[in-house]
Amino acid sequence: MSERIIYITRRERFNGAHRLFRPDWSDEKNLEYFGKCSNPNWHGHNYHLFVTVKGPVNPETGYLINLKDLSRIINDYVIEKLDHKNLNLEVDFLENTIISSENIAIAIWDQIEKPISNIGAALHCVKLVETENNFVEYYGE
Amino acid sequence: MSERIIYITRRERFNGAHRLFRPDWSDEKNLEYFGKCSNPNWHGHNYHLFVTVKGPVNPETGYLINLKDLSRIINDYVIEKLDHKNLNLEVDFLENTIISSENIAIAIWDQIEKPISNIGAALHCVKLVETENNFVEYYGE
Amino acid sequence: MSERIIYITRRERFNGAHRLFRPDWSDEKNLEYFGKCSNPNWHGHNYHLFVTVKGPVNPETGYLINLKDLSRIINDYVIEKLDHKNLNLEVDFLENTIISSENIAIAIWDQIEKPISNIGAALHCVKLVETENNFVEYYGE
Amino acid sequence: MSERIIYITRRERFNGAHRLFRPDWSDEKNLEYFGKCSNPNWHGHNYHLFVTVKGPVNPETGYLINLKDLSRIINDYVIEKLDHKNLNLEVDFLENTIISSENIAIAIWDQIEKPISNIGAALHCVKLVETENNFVEYYGE
Amino acid sequence: MSERIIYITRRERFNGAHRLFRPDWSDEKNLEYFGKCSNPNWHGHNYHLFVTVKGPVNPETGYLINLKDLSRIINDYVIEKLDHKNLNLEVDFLENTIISSENIAIAIWDQIEKPISNIGAALHCVKLVETENNFVEYYGE
Amino acid sequence: MSERIIYITRRERFNGAHRLFRPDWSDEKNLEYFGKCSNPNWHGHNYHLFVTVKGPVNPETGYLINLKDLSRIINDYVIEKLDHKNLNLEVDFLENTIISSENIAIAIWDQIEKPISNIGAALHCVKLVETENNFVEYYGE
Repeated sequence: MSERIIYITRRERFNGAHRLFRPDWSDEKNLEYFGKCSNPNWHGHNYHLFVTVKGPVNPETGYLINLKDLSRIINDYVIEKLDHKNLNLEVDFLENTIISSENIAIAIWDQIEKPISNIGAALHCVKLVETENNFVEYYGE
Repeated sequence: MSERIIYITRRERFNGAHRLFRPDWSDEKNLEYFGKCSNPNWHGHNYHLFVTVKGPVNPETGYLINLKDLSRIINDYVIEKLDHKNLNLEVDFLENTIISSENIAIAIWDQIEKPISNIGAALHCVKLVETENNFVEYYGE
Repeated sequence: MSERIIYITRRERFNGAHRLFRPDWSDEKNLEYFGKCSNPNWHGHNYHLFVTVKGPVNPETGYLINLKDLSRIINDYVIEKLDHKNLNLEVDFLENTIISSENIAIAIWDQIEKPISNIGAALHCVKLVETENNFVEYYGE
Repeated sequence: MSERIIYITRRERFNGAHRLFRPDWSDEKNLEYFGKCSNPNWHGHNYHLFVTVKGPVNPETGYLINLKDLSRIINDYVIEKLDHKNLNLEVDFLENTIISSENIAIAIWDQIEKPISNIGAALHCVKLVETENNFVEYYGE
Repeated sequence: MSERIIYITRRERFNGAHRLFRPDWSDEKNLEYFGKCSNPNWHGHNYHLFVTVKGPVNPETGYLINLKDLSRIINDYVIEKLDHKNLNLEVDFLENTIISSENIAIAIWDQIEKPISNIGAALHCVKLVETENNFVEYYGE
Repeated sequence: MSERIIYITRRERFNGAHRLFRPDWSDEKNLEYFGKCSNPNWHGHNYHLFVTVKGPVNPETGYLINLKDLSRIINDYVIEKLDHKNLNLEVDFLENTIISSENIAIAIWDQIEKPISNIGAALHCVKLVETENNFVEYYGE
């Protein structure tokens, strides 16, 4: 049963404050385009992050990778930097970025792609759920 | 961080009545094939609709598209026509169709593909959840 | 560890069509009061029914009651009569009733209170979930 | 089937930023007691609010109250003031309050108790879900 | 806003193996009464545990208790002893007990009631969810 | 509306006990690699299994396949063999396999691929959810 390609997904969560705005736009233009999401006093979300990796099952262990390693990477490179933080002000890898779900997901991909490769799997998808009605997925394209 | 391809999903909901049957079959044959789903007095569901669109992130806004526009399209072209309606009797774009989840999903695709293209994204998937145990997905193939 | 009072809840589901209306009101008055829920062509829901019973734990078995018996009662007296049915037209114990969630829950209580008492438990609550945003609970008061 | 007492619950949602802290404590003492929830740059949540009201079913309508009225009250008195807001800085009825889930739930009760009484129901419970692991309930005691 | 009584619930999870049986019954009698839950080779569940405590809100902190303390108690007295364990063979506080959800919930109550009292709250409810269709609640009656 | 390719997913559930270990490793080495999942006394899960099949919609019926047939196959070939069982000891198609989610998903694929082909659909994905934080997907690659 070796050399079959499996996809494994790990969910982690973080709670952050953010604001959608462009600093070069007026408050009025930000409000018009981003709506209440541009509130200068911030709002926030319980973000649910799903990281999917792929690769062959190791016949010696029945694992693609040890999930403890994947969880550790996501926590070290992402969750500890985002959880209970202001995503606009306090996150090094989100500086000079409009804090949309699209951009957060892509930036998370860039954070964890190499560390995941280092433990023997390929990053396949970063899915970021902002509310029960909205989520984004980035596949590295 | 421009020209990365992102997938965005918006969930909307509608509650409808329906019946699975072919008018050219007898009640007995309909019951035999479609089971209790062919009840002539109708039954119904809380349908959960997930619409996924794809395209490049706009570096000016951090958005693929403004979700308000996507939500408006789904509501104008689909939800207002299906919610609290009899899907067999009252929906113009489902006329002469067997009201299976398969056909509803495909017909929703045909309703929203062009309007979504008009706001600058490509429709990627229509997912229709009928119950917690059953759902269909259509990718335009 | 005997004679402790425990509460046990069993979930069952049914999918039905219904309409909210009073036959002695005009269509206009029904529409004004009940809104789109009064659509003469019906709409429907995936109802989730939670039945809670209470009583002492039997030290011989560790059970209040055997859940198979509770499930059988709910199915025989409720689910088989409601699932894939038109709740206005096809349910004997809902005749001459406005098919609101309130009235459905109370009528379900009246259906199962005695059979549950017969297997040695007391009916405590009937909870009926119509959508993810609305539910009712009836405690026999 | 009149004069039976029913409980009805309506769910609404809001996304807010907040911070747990006492202005008369040092940052160190706030951090020690409230942990990362005292981050001066805020964090946030998708709050899920469940409002339960009780009262007799009206035999004329099958309703305790019209859910549209309950939803309107919750939106007018609570959601519009909290959604996409900074709960510490922008909410009149939370001024001079430590923004814990406990205090938010109690303050919501005080906001909606009278308006709900005015539409003929009694407020029974305000439940506020902060994360999938934590929620509070206030019953007016 | 002091001396209001609030209810706070914390969810924790554990995955365990178990078997329902009485050692003084034959395998046949156990199978007849407990069904497939009496499988001598065990089966298992992802248990979801909800612990609800009550008491007055402390006006100094906005808290009933610090949730970190509640979580620590549940983990020390319950989760560490049950998670990834055989509930029949490896749990000191479940010895000589039929491992039904009813008995597990009651035994958990007895484990945590005093430690919770020691941090200034009253244990109100232990809710144990075995599957999406079945759960029990114990209120100390 | 013929010859469109649709994906249909059916969810089924099973509760099993298992243990992660290699018989040729010492208990210490198993514990070091697999952690508490290698507990010799077993632990267990509520597994949620999602089977996705694909193929053209039949214009005669509006169905890809009759879901009753898909559900029957999953129950006959998988659920009856796994539910309330010890996955290490009692499942013919898992013999001599490390009982990881990866290997269970792949073995389920091998069990149902041909029967599903026989009813006129192509197996597309086996998704196995072990906990709310972990799941695997196998696409036959």
